[in-house]
Amino acid sequence: MTRANDPKLRSWVEVPHDSDFPIQNLPFGVFRTPGLRPRLCTAIGRYVADLQVLAEHGFFDDLGVPRYVFSRPFLNDFIALGKTATRAVRNRLSELLDDNLEDWDASELAGYFLHLRDEVQMLMPLKVGDYTDFYSSREHATNVGAMFRGKENALMPNWLHLPVGYHGRASSIVVSGTPVRRPKGQMQVQEGAPPVFGPSGQLDFELEMAFVIGRDSQLGASISTADAEDYIFGLVLFNDWSARDIQKWEYVPLGPFLGKNFASTISPWVVTLDALEPFRVEGPAQDPQPLPYLQCDGPRSFDIQLEVELQPAGGKGKPVCHSNFRYLYWNMAQQLAHHTVNGCNIRIGDLMASGTISGPGPDSFGSLLELTWRGANPIPMPDGSERKFLLDGDTVIMRARCEKDGVRIGFGEARGKVLPPF
Amino acid sequence: MTRANDPKLRSWVEVPHDSDFPIQNLPFGVFRTPGLRPRLCTAIGRYVADLQVLAEHGFFDDLGVPRYVFSRPFLNDFIALGKTATRAVRNRLSELLDDNLEDWDASELAGYFLHLRDEVQMLMPLKVGDYTDFYSSREHATNVGAMFRGKENALMPNWLHLPVGYHGRASSIVVSGTPVRRPKGQMQVQEGAPPVFGPSGQLDFELEMAFVIGRDSQLGASISTADAEDYIFGLVLFNDWSARDIQKWEYVPLGPFLGKNFASTISPWVVTLDALEPFRVEGPAQDPQPLPYLQCDGPRSFDIQLEVELQPAGGKGKPVCHSNFRYLYWNMAQQLAHHTVNGCNIRIGDLMASGTISGPGPDSFGSLLELTWRGANPIPMPDGSERKFLLDGDTVIMRARCEKDGVRIGFGEARGKVLPPF
Repeated sequence: MTRANDPKLRSWVEVPHDSDFPIQNLPFGVFRTPGLRPRLCTAIGRYVADLQVLAEHGFFDDLGVPRYVFSRPFLNDFIALGKTATRAVRNRLSELLDDNLEDWDASELAGYFLHLRDEVQMLMPLKVGDYTDFYSSREHATNVGAMFRGKENALMPNWLHLPVGYHGRASSIVVSGTPVRRPKGQMQVQEGAPPVFGPSGQLDFELEMAFVIGRDSQLGASISTADAEDYIFGLVLFNDWSARDIQKWEYVPLGPFLGKNFASTISPWVVTLDALEPFRVEGPAQDPQPLPYLQCDGPRSFDIQLEVELQPAGGKGKPVCHSNFRYLYWNMAQQLAHHTVNGCNIRIGDLMASGTISGPGPDSFGSLLELTWRGANPIPMPDGSERKFLLDGDTVIMRARCEKDGVRIGFGEARGKVLPPF
Repeated sequence: MTRANDPKLRSWVEVPHDSDFPIQNLPFGVFRTPGLRPRLCTAIGRYVADLQVLAEHGFFDDLGVPRYVFSRPFLNDFIALGKTATRAVRNRLSELLDDNLEDWDASELAGYFLHLRDEVQMLMPLKVGDYTDFYSSREHATNVGAMFRGKENALMPNWLHLPVGYHGRASSIVVSGTPVRRPKGQMQVQEGAPPVFGPSGQLDFELEMAFVIGRDSQLGASISTADAEDYIFGLVLFNDWSARDIQKWEYVPLGPFLGKNFASTISPWVVTLDALEPFRVEGPAQDPQPLPYLQCDGPRSFDIQLEVELQPAGGKGKPVCHSNFRYLYWNMAQQLAHHTVNGCNIRIGDLMASGTISGPGPDSFGSLLELTWRGANPIPMPDGSERKFLLDGDTVIMRARCEKDGVRIGFGEARGKVLPPF
């Protein structure tokens, strides 16, 4: 176990008991305040800690980490230093913030490097080269398949043999808080009728998580399941906004396109794989046994509790989904081994999303499509209205956290408000 | 007509009659020679012209074009200057290379800025943010559909209503000359049988062209067909290498993934939309009439002759396909209007490929899948062998050119040799 994960650590920065950001988390992000250029930060309690200021005070110099990486507008250069260096920085932060380590007490500098999180602007933390979306929840694939093709043909024949995935759009990935405009597009209102054009009437969220690639691979080379986690820096929350009516009309035979690529929202915080280590668990048993290149040893999933809250304009919010990352049938090592088995190269900052994470119970379905069963069972809202799909003015808030031994590691939020179309 | 397109122009640089690069072309690329860092260039006859050297001599200063853009390893910063500036640079190059314009005679500097093309290394000219692949040839979609779903269901119901497209992988786009490794992956040898793992036995090319985005758009905004060409800088040749057996097993329901993303090859030269202007033609008539957002005025296609040559290892090559860009049913303005109608943003350097460009005749099919009709009609090669799909050691060479009024505007080659899998 790396130093920073010790559940006994306490910080001299006050951390509320329900905070996502105790001293054991120390995720990485990018922020700015008026007058300051974007730079790297971590989160502690209600604060962000400015890593550029800490670097300028020399706190990372003995780690061999160049100062300039902390004053960049994206995490990519920092991540590119490699896990030995980024782990050393996380451990050093853990020392600087530790209530009991006088050697590294930075509390006298608090006024220089701590900002209340509510008073800074969190920015898109990554420059994303390519973004891939998997489809790795068996429950989600079964639900959607049953709706569109009937119960008997719910899972396609390939689904249990490989982690199905497809390429998404990197340009439209935005950070939590960015409003999302309802897309317009073609849809077919009635089977066999000519398509019509207009705003999507079936705007939906998809509860996902995505892992951040932390190391480049070469074109032509493959990554084994055994090595895969060396290539994963950390995870973010991911809302794969979807327009079901646009998607339905367009997706055969080449897959989702305009029904998805108008926006995806991520959390501003990348929680490192290191911080998640105490929450490692077995994923679901896999039957049939995957082909050898997809087999892996040991537990490869993580116990991360997920929640989606739906908040009408001006109204009270309501949690509409509780799920868990551990429900995913295909794990990240398998996803990455599959993605590269043909020699496809990956690059630092690439995002690989899980696909909608649905669980076994109906309140654990990760999309309105499933929660309302295509609109058949609308969700009653506290203000008396109901939802089949998202309305203009609705805000979707996703949250994720792990809890164990009194320590809670959270991801903050992936939040987005639906705006009417132009 | 812009100055540089005048068919009467002649250069003081000798241009062989069958050259792709007369003074009327002046495409843009990136090259390096031993000892020199990558920089921008154009092509003239058998030479590349070093634009950094010309910039350092001040030849572009009065155009308001900053010198640094020519010493970058990608065209993106140059393209970002906008069409007014890049058009001015192309016209200035036309003046510098013109045999009759003494004001701008650069022939005395020839030794400083001209390099034989055979003696330089052409590099990947673009930093590609996102890559989209369309499916806009009716003949190709019909051929493939007939093979996989029967003649009656060849075209999907959406095909005539929208330019079907999907997202591809940007990381694995390589420049002409880069070898391509045969991918390994899962495939199903027999319907209903469990999948097997191994090298693809159905490696194929796809003859495509791609346009280069020349201007950013904002998330949430749409681009009309009327404005679309303002956002297109130029075109490249594009080989969308495909592993048919991998693709077939994986592609339902989310589209092609590992069957495509192991490599795509582009020509090193971006031919500007300006240079192609004299070759503008009407595309095929569209019936049914597209929805209003896809309608456009005036001719929106280009008469670009396409050729694929297949060259066995150590053997004589053979042209296996002759097609034409004008066969495409959906034009670039429609593709771009569709891509952004939902608010999806585009960025300078993005590539949008056409999909396989097949024509009406069987020798105009743009893939081996179609040319051999899934292997049923193997192609005899000059060395006595035959091809259903590509063999290790085969080289695929794509070429494209326009001809009119004694002027030939070419794209050079998109060339790639197949290597055995690791």
